[in-house]
Amino acid sequence: MTMTDEDGISDADIYDEHGAVRSDFLTEISDAIDRSDRSVIERHVVRLHESELGDLLEALPPPERLTLVRLLGDEFDMTALTQVDEAIRMEIVDQMPNDQIAAGIGELDSDDAVYILEDLDQEDRDEILSQLPFTERVRLRRALEYPEQSAGRRMQTEFIAVPPFWTVGQTIDYMREGEQLPETFTQVFVIDPSFKLLGSIDLDRILRAQLEAKVESIMRETSHPIPAEMDQEEAAQIFEQYDLLSAAVVDENQRLVGVLTIDDVVDVIQEEADEDIKHLGGVGDEELSDNVISTVRSRFVWLAVNLMTAILASSIIDVFDGAIEKMVALAVLMPIVASMGGNAGTQTMTVTVRALATGDLDIYNAFRVVRREASVGLFNGILFAVIMGAIAVLWFHDFQLGIVIGVAMIINLVAAALGGILLPLLLHRFGADPAIASSAFVTTVTDCTGYLAFLGLATWWFALR
Amino acid sequence: MTMTDEDGISDADIYDEHGAVRSDFLTEISDAIDRSDRSVIERHVVRLHESELGDLLEALPPPERLTLVRLLGDEFDMTALTQVDEAIRMEIVDQMPNDQIAAGIGELDSDDAVYILEDLDQEDRDEILSQLPFTERVRLRRALEYPEQSAGRRMQTEFIAVPPFWTVGQTIDYMREGEQLPETFTQVFVIDPSFKLLGSIDLDRILRAQLEAKVESIMRETSHPIPAEMDQEEAAQIFEQYDLLSAAVVDENQRLVGVLTIDDVVDVIQEEADEDIKHLGGVGDEELSDNVISTVRSRFVWLAVNLMTAILASSIIDVFDGAIEKMVALAVLMPIVASMGGNAGTQTMTVTVRALATGDLDIYNAFRVVRREASVGLFNGILFAVIMGAIAVLWFHDFQLGIVIGVAMIINLVAAALGGILLPLLLHRFGADPAIASSAFVTTVTDCTGYLAFLGLATWWFALR
Repeated sequence: MTMTDEDGISDADIYDEHGAVRSDFLTEISDAIDRSDRSVIERHVVRLHESELGDLLEALPPPERLTLVRLLGDEFDMTALTQVDEAIRMEIVDQMPNDQIAAGIGELDSDDAVYILEDLDQEDRDEILSQLPFTERVRLRRALEYPEQSAGRRMQTEFIAVPPFWTVGQTIDYMREGEQLPETFTQVFVIDPSFKLLGSIDLDRILRAQLEAKVESIMRETSHPIPAEMDQEEAAQIFEQYDLLSAAVVDENQRLVGVLTIDDVVDVIQEEADEDIKHLGGVGDEELSDNVISTVRSRFVWLAVNLMTAILASSIIDVFDGAIEKMVALAVLMPIVASMGGNAGTQTMTVTVRALATGDLDIYNAFRVVRREASVGLFNGILFAVIMGAIAVLWFHDFQLGIVIGVAMIINLVAAALGGILLPLLLHRFGADPAIASSAFVTTVTDCTGYLAFLGLATWWFALR
Repeated sequence: MTMTDEDGISDADIYDEHGAVRSDFLTEISDAIDRSDRSVIERHVVRLHESELGDLLEALPPPERLTLVRLLGDEFDMTALTQVDEAIRMEIVDQMPNDQIAAGIGELDSDDAVYILEDLDQEDRDEILSQLPFTERVRLRRALEYPEQSAGRRMQTEFIAVPPFWTVGQTIDYMREGEQLPETFTQVFVIDPSFKLLGSIDLDRILRAQLEAKVESIMRETSHPIPAEMDQEEAAQIFEQYDLLSAAVVDENQRLVGVLTIDDVVDVIQEEADEDIKHLGGVGDEELSDNVISTVRSRFVWLAVNLMTAILASSIIDVFDGAIEKMVALAVLMPIVASMGGNAGTQTMTVTVRALATGDLDIYNAFRVVRREASVGLFNGILFAVIMGAIAVLWFHDFQLGIVIGVAMIINLVAAALGGILLPLLLHRFGADPAIASSAFVTTVTDCTGYLAFLGLATWWFALR
């Protein structure tokens, strides 16, 4: 159903076929911002979904973002700020007066409010909190006291909880008339007078129950309450394992303090996958909207680590400088041995890191998997030994050089397989994140082994000392 | 709440603190399998959640898996098969008689049934389908006709749909008494007599509505029905964007054919992230349970591509063999220039590939991001030019060599930045998956540029020809 208004902008979709914000829509809004034309903005922007507004903000050039937020005034849906990059969020929030932030935050669900508040500095945060009503202030403060990236930070403190002796009918009446209810919900919690969690009931179960039935007779014991201190990644794994839509979050006394919902968990899953990918690629927690200086800084460390490992590998080459001087073909061929090892090691490491992250690799199959990887390394080592050996013979017309590079290839591909699986396993065992350091360590192993095996073998075989 | 039975196995949790299946539990079950002791298995295994049973199956050695399934007989919850690796699923299903599969599949929600059926060969699939009741057979056949990895394959064909003129009260009565209802649900769909989708109502809305209200007065128009042919990844993006719990799946005539639920979408999100990570690491669609031969095969192609690019880079070195012979230090230092370029290129490429996958990178910011990456490459190039230049001077006591490697470093780090962003953008523009081919292309660029810049500059500067 596509309704087109007089400006030619379709109501149905603001995205083009690639999922980017449509350029005609962007131009239209951009022009309206330049003219400070509130009527166009009210017609097109106010009705947007929070995530659409977020995408629009990201697509606009920085100065227009701020003007748009100013033009929207009270009609600016702060939830959109949870949908944009951190850098853009900070840029917008920094420009908004604290009382406008306080007014906007008062409208939000607590999880969204915390998401925005947690990045602000202490002073601004306190000023904003002080302008909120008492109960809300207390709730938000409590959520902000939980550690970063914990379930307590991501939970929503609005939920429906009823005593066990209520009937289904009473519960439904309460849901019809109650104030301060969450906007949407999929389950009702059952608590005792001290707020201790007794169980929960999914809405479909309430709908199917008799009105006079007691809540306690249809409730299900919550088998997996989430401690508020639990890391969000661990909480996400529980959601995945038991296909939950929402879960009770409890404090250390098993009292219900909030509810974690699947939409936040989906964000967590995306963030964690993102983190793994970036760590494997040697980049930290950077975003596309970061500026040049902070990007240079975040990448510098990794490159510095790599420089050290590269120098280490080169110092092995240096040991064999006499051999290279006598036989330059060695300098030509040695990067091939190192590079093949690096790639084979990266393959094994990628599979290992991912299997550790998803819990597919554990003590029961670790030995089997190590044996499999070693066999794969040996097989591929033999295959590429033959191929590369033949190429070397054709290239340099030296049969013996083919044998030397072949043997070096086998040694390095087995080393790559073992390094690729044992290093992440070791890092994991000692509580480190295997995604971060593995690739540097693995290529160090394959570079050093590659140069050492090839140059060492050649020196010995051709008696180049 | 931990209840320990006489065998010392806690009812509360079968996992140890690392999330692996507890070894005492595993030993207990393993022993019971060896003794064919049905009573222990009934007490401990039948009550497990499907995902726990899946983890147990994965932790057991292959022969015991099959025995366990046989011992469980009709009590084997086939849903567990959707929770294990494909190789293990095939191994178990292959051993089960078709009529047992048919009986088990009849109990499943249609999405789970399709998940298991789609991997079987045509003959087995037809035999199993023929043993199912008519309506179910038709439903499953229809779902199986949609393309692989489409929303139609992942949808559940059990849903609740009511006509618009019903009252809320009638709808609730229908949910209380109706047969053939889905096990759990979070929304009710509204359809016209030809099954055309009119809208949907979330359960919390039904609960808050007056019993005599008409369904059409409280329903929400479904703004994002999912076409059954839509790729599951695209469907997942819609779920993420609009924070959906479930969504109507419609055929080409906008008729309701099923419902896609968030738990399946979470699996899709995980699969897609997995795919990206593996592609970047140069591995295909392999699983930990694959055997040696299929793993060797799947990794061979990537290594062969890498061999060709490595040979290409080495042939550049070969051009400068005379220079290396005169100045062996060049052979020692050249891998450092290439390796730094490779790492810097991988950093940029990782950020780019991820930003393309999440839709953060598009035509509006591409130019800005390319400029940023080039600047970052230049900055880091200058920093590492100074550092590595100094190291080279100290190492080889040759000031001019320091200058040469410094300049080569700057050139290669800028090339790395440009290659790291332009190659994935180009692949994306031409409809290829940037995660697959990028890393091979990017390191080819940085290896070749690194050797060419360093060796070429050195040859010219020191007049080594």
